[in-house]
Amino acid sequence: MNYYPASIRNLIRQIAKLPGIGEKTAERLALHILKMPHGSAEQLAQSILDVKGRTRSCSRCHAWSDEAVCHICRDASRHNGLLCVVEQPADMVAVEKAGAFRGLYHILGGVLSPMNGVGPDDIRVADLFRRVREEDLKEVVIATGTNVEGEATAAFLAEELQSLSIRVTRIASGVPMGGDLKYVDQVTLKRAMETRHAF
Amino acid sequence: MNYYPASIRNLIRQIAKLPGIGEKTAERLALHILKMPHGSAEQLAQSILDVKGRTRSCSRCHAWSDEAVCHICRDASRHNGLLCVVEQPADMVAVEKAGAFRGLYHILGGVLSPMNGVGPDDIRVADLFRRVREEDLKEVVIATGTNVEGEATAAFLAEELQSLSIRVTRIASGVPMGGDLKYVDQVTLKRAMETRHAF
Repeated sequence: MNYYPASIRNLIRQIAKLPGIGEKTAERLALHILKMPHGSAEQLAQSILDVKGRTRSCSRCHAWSDEAVCHICRDASRHNGLLCVVEQPADMVAVEKAGAFRGLYHILGGVLSPMNGVGPDDIRVADLFRRVREEDLKEVVIATGTNVEGEATAAFLAEELQSLSIRVTRIASGVPMGGDLKYVDQVTLKRAMETRHAF
Repeated sequence: MNYYPASIRNLIRQIAKLPGIGEKTAERLALHILKMPHGSAEQLAQSILDVKGRTRSCSRCHAWSDEAVCHICRDASRHNGLLCVVEQPADMVAVEKAGAFRGLYHILGGVLSPMNGVGPDDIRVADLFRRVREEDLKEVVIATGTNVEGEATAAFLAEELQSLSIRVTRIASGVPMGGDLKYVDQVTLKRAMETRHAF
């Protein structure tokens, strides 16, 4: 590292802090940035500052947004009777990429985890119930993860929501598409068998 | 890409321009930066601006430097009678990392390439001759690459420098250390045979 002047050394150190970027890659990227046109490097630096300065949480669904209300909540073509509940903004992006959902979202900001002291008051459960009461929703799709905490959170929400007389559904679990049965874990295969359905 | 607000989309686009960083990795890094503490993201952005704003060329050897004269040229413990001629600053770093050279450097800033219209006046050849005349040098080690242009540049420099009655040497070419002879290319093996030496 002492082969470089301090400014290059510092950039290598900063880049190497990013996940999955080793010392060698950080060095390569730093030297690339050094050779970039001045304007491009400034754009890169500015975009880093912008993402921290401008990105906030949508006041309605809590997704990442540059404005008070995100582009999905503002989109009049979305089915506003359908609400998908996810753990994190990245999960919302994953559902959007799948392209099979045209409703609105609600980001919980976590899952119930009694072991870690996370109860219903620590995630956006009350806000979800408020939305269910105030918005004219027909169905809530619970798309929390399929690990223990995600499943427990889904069960908790389903129970609470059913008292509000609204249709509550859960995304299906089972063998991943393109999957080979002999490589699928037992718990998943058991679930796929239990939730089998007619053609 | 439209799954993200503009600020995140822009950061992903900027990161994806870096060499060896695909769209997926850029997305992962952008989301990491989004979640970073504000101070860390600012440090990263500032280090990018610094490397462009502060790094310049050493006025003596033309290596990367934060100051007018680089840390190697200023280092009194280096043998100032020994000069290593390389093509680019990154080559100097490679020689430094090898740890077998304690002299000074001269960065040519390229190689002679008549095909591309690069002659002796387009790289720092005159400056090298000036240093050889003005500095009290004992030996010039030519460490340009071993491709056609690097070899031709080395031959040209050797011929010109020998008239200045100074010892001129060339880094050795041959089988890479740890190399298996059956995987070494014919040109390298031929060179290794021709330049064989006694134990």
